[in-house]
Order: sequence, then C-alpha cells, then structure tokens
Amino acid sequence: MTDTVKAITLASRPKGAPATSDFATETVELKAPEAGQVRVQVLWLSLDPYMRGRMDDAKSYAAPVPLGGVMEGEAVGRIVASNAEGFAEGDIVIGPFGWSEGAVVDATHLRRVDPDRAPIQTALGVLGMPGLTAWVGLNDIAEAKAGETIVVSAATGAVGSVVGQLAKARGLRVIGVAGGAEKCAYAVEELGFDACIDHRAEDLAEQLKAAAPEVDIYFENVGGATLAAVLPLMAVGGRIALIGMIAWYNGKNLDQTIPLPAMWRAILTKRLKVQGMIVMDHADRREAFLDEVAPLVADGRVKYRETVAEGLDQAPEAFLAMLEGGNFGKQLVKVADA
Amino acid sequence: MTDTVKAITLASRPKGAPATSDFATETVELKAPEAGQVRVQVLWLSLDPYMRGRMDDAKSYAAPVPLGGVMEGEAVGRIVASNAEGFAEGDIVIGPFGWSEGAVVDATHLRRVDPDRAPIQTALGVLGMPGLTAWVGLNDIAEAKAGETIVVSAATGAVGSVVGQLAKARGLRVIGVAGGAEKCAYAVEELGFDACIDHRAEDLAEQLKAAAPEVDIYFENVGGATLAAVLPLMAVGGRIALIGMIAWYNGKNLDQTIPLPAMWRAILTKRLKVQGMIVMDHADRREAFLDEVAPLVADGRVKYRETVAEGLDQAPEAFLAMLEGGNFGKQLVKVADA
Repeated sequence: MTDTVKAITLASRPKGAPATSDFATETVELKAPEAGQVRVQVLWLSLDPYMRGRMDDAKSYAAPVPLGGVMEGEAVGRIVASNAEGFAEGDIVIGPFGWSEGAVVDATHLRRVDPDRAPIQTALGVLGMPGLTAWVGLNDIAEAKAGETIVVSAATGAVGSVVGQLAKARGLRVIGVAGGAEKCAYAVEELGFDACIDHRAEDLAEQLKAAAPEVDIYFENVGGATLAAVLPLMAVGGRIALIGMIAWYNGKNLDQTIPLPAMWRAILTKRLKVQGMIVMDHADRREAFLDEVAPLVADGRVKYRETVAEGLDQAPEAFLAMLEGGNFGKQLVKVADA
Repeated sequence: MTDTVKAITLASRPKGAPATSDFATETVELKAPEAGQVRVQVLWLSLDPYMRGRMDDAKSYAAPVPLGGVMEGEAVGRIVASNAEGFAEGDIVIGPFGWSEGAVVDATHLRRVDPDRAPIQTALGVLGMPGLTAWVGLNDIAEAKAGETIVVSAATGAVGSVVGQLAKARGLRVIGVAGGAEKCAYAVEELGFDACIDHRAEDLAEQLKAAAPEVDIYFENVGGATLAAVLPLMAVGGRIALIGMIAWYNGKNLDQTIPLPAMWRAILTKRLKVQGMIVMDHADRREAFLDEVAPLVADGRVKYRETVAEGLDQAPEAFLAMLEGGNFGKQLVKVADA
C-alpha cells in the first residue's frame, strides 16, 4: 500500500436517477494514523439503497455527502497499521470506510469481524446492517406473531430475504413480492416463502389478493405499486414496518401511489400501525440479533445470496443497477482479495 | 308515552356534504319489551363526526346505516318499561338508542349512568366515548410523556378538549388548533393550553412552527391543512394518534394534502409511528378511565363545554353544523327533559 488510495467521490447531485457521471474517481492521500486511529485496507464495500438519499442535499436523518466528498459506506477491511490499543495489523474489522481502497479512522468506529464464524463479507449483509434491519423490523416494529400473514417486498434483497426466512421459522405465512420470475422462484424454492408475486405483473393487485387476502404485516421496502396493492388487503390491527421506499427514491413512480386521505382512512378504519425504522437507532440489539441469527446462517437454515462487483471502479455502475433491481441478494463490491 | 315515537331516518346517501334532505322524520312503532329487553325514553342524543361515515355505503369498521333506517347514535335515556332483570323503571341508562325519542333494546346493550356523579349527559361526552377516546389515545396510542410537546387538532371539541387538559396535567406542552379566535381563546384561557392556532389562518404553518417547532405527538382529529402544517414539525420518534379526519369526511378539502411519498419519507426518516384508533376496541379501559377522569371532572380540574340543540327535530341541522365546526365543545341534542 502507498500513502495514496483510489476513492469514489460525489461529483454532482443527481436530478432523479443518478448517472455514472455523478461520480468521480480520485486519488486520496491517507495520513499516518494518529493515537487511537488505525489504517485499513478495504476488502469489501457494501452498496445499499439508503446511499441514494445521501446524494441529495435534502434534510434527512443523516447529513448528505458533500460535493467532492468520498461516498459514504460501510465496508470490511484489514488493519494495515494500528496506533490504537486492542487493534493489531491483520485484524479484520468493519467500519465506515466509504467507497475507497483504504481509510484512516478512529478505532471507536470499528467493530471486529470474526473470520471463523462466517465469510467476512456477511458482516455487511445477512449478519450485518441488513440482517439487523430485518430482525428488528420483524420483532420490534412489526411485532410478528405465529399464524399471521406477512407480505415482504424486495423479497430476495438483503433485508427482505432475511425477513421472510425468519418469519417462516416463526410460523408466519410469508408472501414475497420481487422483480421477475427468477427472483420469485428463488424466494419460494430456496428461501421457503409460501408464495411470491412479480411486482411487474399487470395484475399485481389481483395476484396478491389471491395469495394473501388478509395481511397482518406488510414489510415495506419499496412504496409505489406494491404498497398500493397491499393496502386494501391489510387486516384490522395490521402493521406496516416502513424500512425503505426504493421505488420512489429517484423521484420516479410518483404516480404509482394513492391519495393521502385514502391512506389516512385505511389507517383509521383498520386501526393500522405504520412505523418507520432506521437501523442505526437499534445498535443495542446487535448482540441479541447475532446470538439468534448467526447460528442459523452457519448451519444453512438462513440462506443468503450475493451480487458481487469486482473492483472499486465498478461501484457506481453496480449501485445504479441495484437501484433498478439488477442485484440478486446483497450487493457488494470486492475491492481487494482478502 | 305512546307506542309510537318520532325518529330521524336516512333518506338518501349524501354525495359530499350531507343536506337536511338526506334525513327524514318518521313515526316508528315500538313493541313491548320482550324478556331481557327494556323500553327507553331518550333524553339526550350524542352527535359525533363518525356518523358521517355511517351515511355512506363504503366498507368501514362498522356497517352503514341502511337507507330508510333510523340514524345510529349513542344516547342517554330513562327506562319506562323493563322486562330485564336488574333494570327498573326510572333507571338512567346509556345505549345505542339512535336518533329517536325512544327505543326498545336488549339490556346487554345498556350501561347504567349514575345521576349523582355528574350531569347525565356527560356520559356522552367528557365521561363517555369522547373522553375515553382522548384518554386511550393519549395513553395507549400516543404514549404521552411529561416534557413532550403535543399538538391537538379540533382542540375545543369533545375529544380534543379532554386530550389537551389531560396532557397539561401530565406535564406536556400543549398546542391546540381550532377554528376561530373564540375557540382558541377558550382553549388557552379556560382549558389551560399553552397556545392555540386558528386553522383558518393563512399563515397556519408559520404560526404553528413558531408555537411548536418540535412536535412529539400530533393528536389527529382533522386531516387536511392542519396535518400538512404539522408534519414538517414532527420530531424524530414522534407519534401521530389518528382518531379522525373530519376535514376530509365530506370528500372536501382533498387538495389540502401532501403526496403519499412525502408522508412515507417523513415517517421513515423521522421514525414516526402513525396509529389509527377506534374507541370501541377499548371498552375494557372504561373503568380505568372513569377512575382517573371522573374525579377531575367532578372538582372542575377537567372542564367541558356543550352545544345543545333543543328537540330531536333539530338533530340534522345540528349535525351538519358540527361537521363544519359550528359546535363549541360536545354537540348534544336534548330530546326530552330529564
């Protein structure tokens, strides 16, 4: 490693759907780690839908990436120089290293990754933020109970696939919604969902009604046409766990909606609970999550799938494709060999 | 009393705002009470916004009133003939007697009203369904905590006035929204609200922001422009207790809204909880509610106000006026002298 690394920066704020021209590849200088800091070589970078929001300067739960700044992101890396007690060269860690080949960060931002427990990149997926999102959403937000029916949108994604598998293990009836026949077949045949509907189908609403006439829980990752199709099926006392709304992220599909008064009426007359969730509020639940889910991943009861882009240069294109549903399972960038 | 009574029936289903022509006055025959039944002379009839929904044949949480059927409503009356154990002539009771001078009902639908505790018509208001709505909404749905800020719409109405006073007693900061200067003055000077904004003000959003820059709880009775003004002020982790949406009931003010994607984005990024509530789900909480609130009413710590229409004939006009905000406090019809 040199004192400079390659990084992807935000070149311009997109209007609507981002383009590769909104990103730039730059060479960034890394200083030597000061006391309490480490230098990390990035091995795996996570790409997640929330990053689309960080490209805008709209007020949100986190500050936007500044123009010209390195794109933010969680990554797994190896420590190549440590000036922090308790961390040594060679340790595998996860932290906010960004879209970069390397970073110097305070050790307080690091968590250790145990390479013996599972492949290290699962710390970004099924055993990381997406898995924790699924677990907290199902337990704390959706209050899932055996015998209930749950509809999971983005069913084969990093979050949805874990939601559905955990819900099945708890005795819920699980209906997925995903983009295309291949993903739906995977949801049913590999992940064990009871059914899966292609959200591109003209008769999405009818198919969904046939599969799930009474929906106790809607695990909302997408918004758009799927939400409009699920809402009339919600049962009295139903819960909508609002985790994402990827269909609307690029200012697209805004016509695929229903008027707010109709939504309000549904919430009132059916006594629904709609609750938003951001996983960073629930870091205190990580150990309980890992205690339950890591063994299920280790013995194959919870399966996961990855789409891997090779090399940091591929990150922008992989990110744009993911926003259009081009990934299949967790979207990763392999930045360097482990 | 004769064997016939006067009653108000549903003559036609309104398109938009109802008119007096949607109601008819009819003479209804009452049979002698069978075993387990009583005959009641109605003294006080309650008029409530939810009744607008029963005039439509849309699917809702309760069946619509059939065309030609007596308008439904809770009322307080005196038993004039009893064929039910435990109920005697002269007892004051509350039940689903409808917009009528009298009714024959199963005693299982009755609850006793104690005339020594408070004026009997309060069983329809501050100590009845509206009061219970306020209490359950504040406790169980909004999860109100001392030090928080609550915005209460329809602030001087039968529900809102109790919400605000109970919230003040618990140490919340209470901002009302009501229709007009007189109601707002009453909310602040008589009910003890910290501030009250006129929802008809051109600069409603600015005034509300100045009074309540961070809103932990929005007690939603109205929808429309008030909701649009409150939403940007909601704090992270805020709750919206969705109890009613009177601004939209007649298919009016549907332009006073925001797009659902914007609502969804607010719920997600601020981790809001939006929950609908129908008071009939919470009948098991009535005793706990009365134990707490009846003493507060008795010694004047919780105040209430009534708008009284004299005579059953006045019910339709009073109902229409109430939907436009013409009432001040609980809307009642005095059907007969007690």
